[in-house]
Amino acid sequence: MPATDEDIQSVNYEPATYSDAIVSSSDEEIAYTKKNKAVPTVLPSEKHHEEFIKDCVEIILSEAVFEGTDRKNKVLDFHNPEELEKLFDFEIRNCPSTHESLKKLVRDTVQYSVKTGHPYFVNQLFSSLDPYGLVGQWLTDALNPITPVFTLMEECVLREMRRIVGFKDGKGDGMFCPGGSMANGYAINCARYKYMPDVKAKGLHCLPRLVVFTSEDAHYSVKKMAAFLGLGTDNVYLVKTDSRGRMDVGHLEEEIQKSLSEGAAPFMVSATSGTTVIGAFDPLGEIADVCDKYKLWLHVDAAWGGGALMSKRHRRLLAGIERADSVTWNPHKLLTAPQQCSTLLLQHEGILSAVHSANAGYLFQKDKFYDTKYDTGDKHVQCGRRADVLKFWFMWKAKGTSGLEQHIDKVFENAKFFLDTIKHRPGFELVVEEPECTNICFWYIPPSLRGSISEPNYKEKLHKIAPKIKEKMMKEGTMMVTYQADKERPNFFRIVFQNSGLEKSDMLYLIEEFERLGAEF
Amino acid sequence: MPATDEDIQSVNYEPATYSDAIVSSSDEEIAYTKKNKAVPTVLPSEKHHEEFIKDCVEIILSEAVFEGTDRKNKVLDFHNPEELEKLFDFEIRNCPSTHESLKKLVRDTVQYSVKTGHPYFVNQLFSSLDPYGLVGQWLTDALNPITPVFTLMEECVLREMRRIVGFKDGKGDGMFCPGGSMANGYAINCARYKYMPDVKAKGLHCLPRLVVFTSEDAHYSVKKMAAFLGLGTDNVYLVKTDSRGRMDVGHLEEEIQKSLSEGAAPFMVSATSGTTVIGAFDPLGEIADVCDKYKLWLHVDAAWGGGALMSKRHRRLLAGIERADSVTWNPHKLLTAPQQCSTLLLQHEGILSAVHSANAGYLFQKDKFYDTKYDTGDKHVQCGRRADVLKFWFMWKAKGTSGLEQHIDKVFENAKFFLDTIKHRPGFELVVEEPECTNICFWYIPPSLRGSISEPNYKEKLHKIAPKIKEKMMKEGTMMVTYQADKERPNFFRIVFQNSGLEKSDMLYLIEEFERLGAEF
Repeated sequence: MPATDEDIQSVNYEPATYSDAIVSSSDEEIAYTKKNKAVPTVLPSEKHHEEFIKDCVEIILSEAVFEGTDRKNKVLDFHNPEELEKLFDFEIRNCPSTHESLKKLVRDTVQYSVKTGHPYFVNQLFSSLDPYGLVGQWLTDALNPITPVFTLMEECVLREMRRIVGFKDGKGDGMFCPGGSMANGYAINCARYKYMPDVKAKGLHCLPRLVVFTSEDAHYSVKKMAAFLGLGTDNVYLVKTDSRGRMDVGHLEEEIQKSLSEGAAPFMVSATSGTTVIGAFDPLGEIADVCDKYKLWLHVDAAWGGGALMSKRHRRLLAGIERADSVTWNPHKLLTAPQQCSTLLLQHEGILSAVHSANAGYLFQKDKFYDTKYDTGDKHVQCGRRADVLKFWFMWKAKGTSGLEQHIDKVFENAKFFLDTIKHRPGFELVVEEPECTNICFWYIPPSLRGSISEPNYKEKLHKIAPKIKEKMMKEGTMMVTYQADKERPNFFRIVFQNSGLEKSDMLYLIEEFERLGAEF
Repeated sequence: MPATDEDIQSVNYEPATYSDAIVSSSDEEIAYTKKNKAVPTVLPSEKHHEEFIKDCVEIILSEAVFEGTDRKNKVLDFHNPEELEKLFDFEIRNCPSTHESLKKLVRDTVQYSVKTGHPYFVNQLFSSLDPYGLVGQWLTDALNPITPVFTLMEECVLREMRRIVGFKDGKGDGMFCPGGSMANGYAINCARYKYMPDVKAKGLHCLPRLVVFTSEDAHYSVKKMAAFLGLGTDNVYLVKTDSRGRMDVGHLEEEIQKSLSEGAAPFMVSATSGTTVIGAFDPLGEIADVCDKYKLWLHVDAAWGGGALMSKRHRRLLAGIERADSVTWNPHKLLTAPQQCSTLLLQHEGILSAVHSANAGYLFQKDKFYDTKYDTGDKHVQCGRRADVLKFWFMWKAKGTSGLEQHIDKVFENAKFFLDTIKHRPGFELVVEEPECTNICFWYIPPSLRGSISEPNYKEKLHKIAPKIKEKMMKEGTMMVTYQADKERPNFFRIVFQNSGLEKSDMLYLIEEFERLGAEF
């Protein structure tokens, strides 16, 4: 079957000359270019490449994976973008680089990157570097796949997730999406299609004004996607939240009534399970009742909080989710699958194909010799796409459902321990007294500000503290925690627990770091 | 800084019991579970995990990367999805798996996957497994990154790509997108925003009927995205193509006139550089003239053909692209970056932020201590997203612009050699006599059908040949080439050259395979 060596050698392939337009290349690189005509060849099985790949893997494993997640190392080695442009060789040139200089670039990339797998990266709604997730991701990359194996894995994982959500027998529909924002967008598209199937062919220009409802604490993607989908940001009506950040269902009903009185067409509520900042869970049962009453599509954005469904102890936070028409759930968040791993789960069978299919004959041939029901590509808006399932499926296989449950219980325990500890610690003040999820929002009040709460410019002073602590934190690289202002509240920190490799001793470390960093302000 | 060993050991973490609801687990796995309480812990630096990761990398490198791209092995080991469900352990269980059984799953995933990096995978608009791309992808995964390094790489790569497109001094705007379909969708959104900025807040319901024009051979994503964006598939007017698959500019102007006479609002033409099946390049200069005349946004979908811009010899195919308002160009196609690597390039500065920004204060704090112009996230619809730049930037660094040019020249040479050879070979008949890109469309006429072209059911008979050859091809796994019907034409094969590791001897192998597989029909 293969071509013989003679065949291959006899091919007279003369590469284009490198002489023209060589820009800013070192002598070493020019010499390298001259003797290495094989650069454009892309078969990794050639000896030259095999050694290079192995060397790079060695560097990545040792410096990014093992060193990068070790408590004794820094979370980041901070440089301003302007400094970084000088320290790091970003520039693209006409001629190739040597393997030696490429290996240096691998090392530099690791050095100057934030180590999001480090235990003290507690900054965002993703973190950790799960060993099984990493293996799954690397395997995906090596296969760059289009293959029934991945389709079958998707069906299996999505069915199990639907079962855990509480859809009857795991039935319904689902897909992996390029991020939770897109999943929310797909949900809006499904909802409006169900409301008015003509919209697919005719568009919105002749329709009444369609209105979506979501809380003022919901993720900004609901507005973003409403604009993208042609509904307009003004037609996302924001519902008030209570003091714990949960949707005010009374106000929801008022807003629905208001839209009806305006002659608009309400069609969907997007509730949130685990808001971005506070981690609040909207009361899904009550919202579902309102949706039933007004015949609205209920979407639940559980991108962040969905992971709690794995735990018998914590899934009550999402009680009522089984009544949703659609659910966004990102395993790359609480369940720490590698970015990105986002899903949309639907109670309704077949709707994704109905909404999104284009039936392009050149892609989805129906005269194949096997059952084409496994060609599920047409239910996506994307054409070519990465297989985001394998890494999560592999983690799930590795840990079992019980392992994922333990993981969730552990991160909730960590959050509670952190909360209970700072409650009794001078200088820490909670934004929300009883947080529901693993994000904990608090002000760190430095010694100089303590006791001056009644002073007129206290809020302005406090507002400036978090950015100062964050600057020092990033420059020292000892941990990474984000801050933000919110409505009337001055800047506060939000710490996020997702990594079940963290222990109580780590919680104490993080608390003490705030005290150390904040002491001088 | 780190917690001491004592601290860590002293934490009394009692995992939830595994005893309840253990479903279909082997005795070995149950025993494993009992002695391994550390499963949910996700620090890869622990010894237990370190060895596992290394073992898996060894398997992936040897079986997927090196063996999987070796000519002497099969492209695929075909099984029906139903068979696969029996052969492969997809099922998710309550309890964890042993490392041994996980390693078997890695091996099985490789075995049952199509080897898209194999030289004889010439089936789709992506293929190859570039060693530098793979290293870049693995490095990205290990960092799971959010980091200025990647933002600066994006700026650098996008600027260089704009320069190569021909935008003045590489200025403009750009972004990495989750696939070419999404890039086309972003382009439509930018175009309609420029046409009527109110659409972002108000939506389409009160606007005139907006119309997009594209050719009947254009990618189906234009229609898909028009539906998703609320414009409606009926408002994508399809322009006829000539015998070589290129947009008929006379007919384009007629369709624009028609839409105006209907009172609709034409706002955009989406031209194609490298159509999906035939690989045709629309005449961009003439189309740009029409766009100027009617003040329409010119988008060029060069997802497939964009790579030809790297070559001084072939970039004339896209002459006029420098007049485009926006360009989709997927380096994961002709330039063989790993999936996915898609870009949208715009001639207009700042438009992406204007169109897509939501200014969520909790994400994009303006009181940071460094210049926040590098926080470019808000110009995306996605929130969290993968860094798709590193792998391509690393390949570009490795090969240099000259290496990418050689790559393109080589794959065009290969296509020409294949074409010239089959032209004079009995049994091969071309669908398009002079293909412009590296996809070559042809019928293979088996001996039994030769000379019977005038018979009444010749077309029906020929239509059934390609599926039969494909079935045999997949079952034997000796190569992978796709087929499709197109308009009035019966099923034909489309072979796609992208892998510059292929030699003339490989072209001969592929041709002889068609002859061997087709002999019996």
